[in-house]
Amino acid sequence: MFAEIITIGDEILIGQIVDTNSAHISKELNKIGVQVYQITSIQDDKEHILQALEDAKNRVDLVLVTGGLGPTRDDITKQCFIEFFDDDYVENEQVLQHIKELFLKYFNKEPLPSNLLQAQVPSKATILFNSYGTAPGMWMEKDDTVFVAMPGVPYEMKYLLKDSVLPKIIENFNRPHIYHKTLLTYGMGESDIAHRISGWEENLPQHIKLSYLPALGRVRLRLSSKGADEQKLRNEVDGQMEIVHKMLSDIAVGFEGETSITQKIGELLIQQNKTLSLVESFTGGALAQEITRYAGASAFYRGGIIPYATELKISILGVSDELIKKHSVVSLPVAESMAERGSKIFQSDY
Amino acid sequence: MFAEIITIGDEILIGQIVDTNSAHISKELNKIGVQVYQITSIQDDKEHILQALEDAKNRVDLVLVTGGLGPTRDDITKQCFIEFFDDDYVENEQVLQHIKELFLKYFNKEPLPSNLLQAQVPSKATILFNSYGTAPGMWMEKDDTVFVAMPGVPYEMKYLLKDSVLPKIIENFNRPHIYHKTLLTYGMGESDIAHRISGWEENLPQHIKLSYLPALGRVRLRLSSKGADEQKLRNEVDGQMEIVHKMLSDIAVGFEGETSITQKIGELLIQQNKTLSLVESFTGGALAQEITRYAGASAFYRGGIIPYATELKISILGVSDELIKKHSVVSLPVAESMAERGSKIFQSDY
Repeated sequence: MFAEIITIGDEILIGQIVDTNSAHISKELNKIGVQVYQITSIQDDKEHILQALEDAKNRVDLVLVTGGLGPTRDDITKQCFIEFFDDDYVENEQVLQHIKELFLKYFNKEPLPSNLLQAQVPSKATILFNSYGTAPGMWMEKDDTVFVAMPGVPYEMKYLLKDSVLPKIIENFNRPHIYHKTLLTYGMGESDIAHRISGWEENLPQHIKLSYLPALGRVRLRLSSKGADEQKLRNEVDGQMEIVHKMLSDIAVGFEGETSITQKIGELLIQQNKTLSLVESFTGGALAQEITRYAGASAFYRGGIIPYATELKISILGVSDELIKKHSVVSLPVAESMAERGSKIFQSDY
Repeated sequence: MFAEIITIGDEILIGQIVDTNSAHISKELNKIGVQVYQITSIQDDKEHILQALEDAKNRVDLVLVTGGLGPTRDDITKQCFIEFFDDDYVENEQVLQHIKELFLKYFNKEPLPSNLLQAQVPSKATILFNSYGTAPGMWMEKDDTVFVAMPGVPYEMKYLLKDSVLPKIIENFNRPHIYHKTLLTYGMGESDIAHRISGWEENLPQHIKLSYLPALGRVRLRLSSKGADEQKLRNEVDGQMEIVHKMLSDIAVGFEGETSITQKIGELLIQQNKTLSLVESFTGGALAQEITRYAGASAFYRGGIIPYATELKISILGVSDELIKKHSVVSLPVAESMAERGSKIFQSDY
């Protein structure tokens, strides 16, 4: 089965925001076996929205729409749905109560008329309750294509997708399994890689697709396939990946989505009941950021110091003047000396 | 005039990458008066690419395509152009020489046959020379619509857009001016804002469009307009923005794209010849990151310390135990005490 994502909002078309919703939705749909055929971003314009809904209906089985469900005048998605499905508004009691409760709880006041209007929904829609905002999601059908409208605010969309939309898709559609595996390589161009593995690539089964994703200095190689039998699918793709991994063993550095280095460090420290502190200079807090992003950081992370100016490396961390003169500030001996002293100040094991 | 952006690549449709190219292109097009009507992301699939080109031709005057120009088998955009424009390949001597030089310079070897094939281009195309890669851009026309193909690798696309594509658009199209101005507000919901400014919003001239961009705790209000006379356009939008800015003076914190707070702090410090150090805890290095991102940081930034564990706040920064017990670790008095001690350790003014 195929899906299309339609993101609605002028802010996307003028480049004021990067559309991250589509990538999130695509990834989640892939996990449950739904292939995204097209992503379409359009303006908050009635004629254009209606045309995009019609076009998508002729292309796919499922259309996920985000944006334009808010309470202000520039939000017109719901109106377009009313027109597209030739429908009328009805008041949804649960949504109405939810809006009143949200306003009482967070603002200690009555909702405005514009907020109460958000409880007016298309009569033919199955309402998808939005715990995190006032605009509910909607699930509607036309000519065997399902249309789902979700708010454009990312955290509201994400919860609605996870809590309501994905389970309902799983319930309503027969889906194959989709499986991707991506090998990370460094230090060789894509044409050289293609040249080296061409014999293997030519003999890849038709239903396994190879893609090259080049960037400066690195190339990601992705194998994608879909099928009814998940285990068979995985075995087949993993098997092919093993072959190409061996052919590229000198430039392969791992697979995408594997445990990150930060997480591995954290796990090892917790396991050994050790603690860590950081001394940074040029990276100016980037390492500390990375570590504290890790959920269990307080169990092992003591703190850090950033002696940015050179003389502070001497006065605070006691690095000797001669060592800096001999090896320069950016050198292994100076870094070692700072790290050693840092772990003493912060009473950490590393 | 209207443009459409078509981004080609399975990696977008499976959510493996976020499409940042489209936002960049949209922003740059807006600056030269080209309005983006639609952004379409599709797979590396021949039938689908041909259909998308045909659909776009019927919608807009200019179609910008990114992706699928590389030397590997999964890159099929050029083939699709050959078919769509009913064209044949010719060898482009300049591109051929460039490919040979690039390989000699960076890899010290001859290009592979797959690389040399990149010098084969559609005979009807105007070739846009790509200094940063082996795949040239292409400018072609069909039924009064211009089609431009660019590589999908962001840095190659950006240079090609700036150096070749934008100047050629400016030369070939009559374009109006497009002007956006965005007010940043904090602390009030979009429906409350809309309620307060509804009288003003109702009387906005038809050609000025107001958009609300809500996020957690903040709302951005954008005014957009286009017209032939740039000065008149700016005066009109700025005038309306001044009115609404006054109506929202209690929640307005500035305009988008203005000098950031970090930059303002940096400028003030350099101007007054003062220095800064940072003590962070919960933010775990995020402030330090923000400051060192600022190009002239070494002129005023001394360094920072991140006493993440509570007892380090006592042992290193000498915050008194009673102060923490009385006010809790996350409190103004404790923060003040840490900041004062921090500036002493780092010999900074602030």
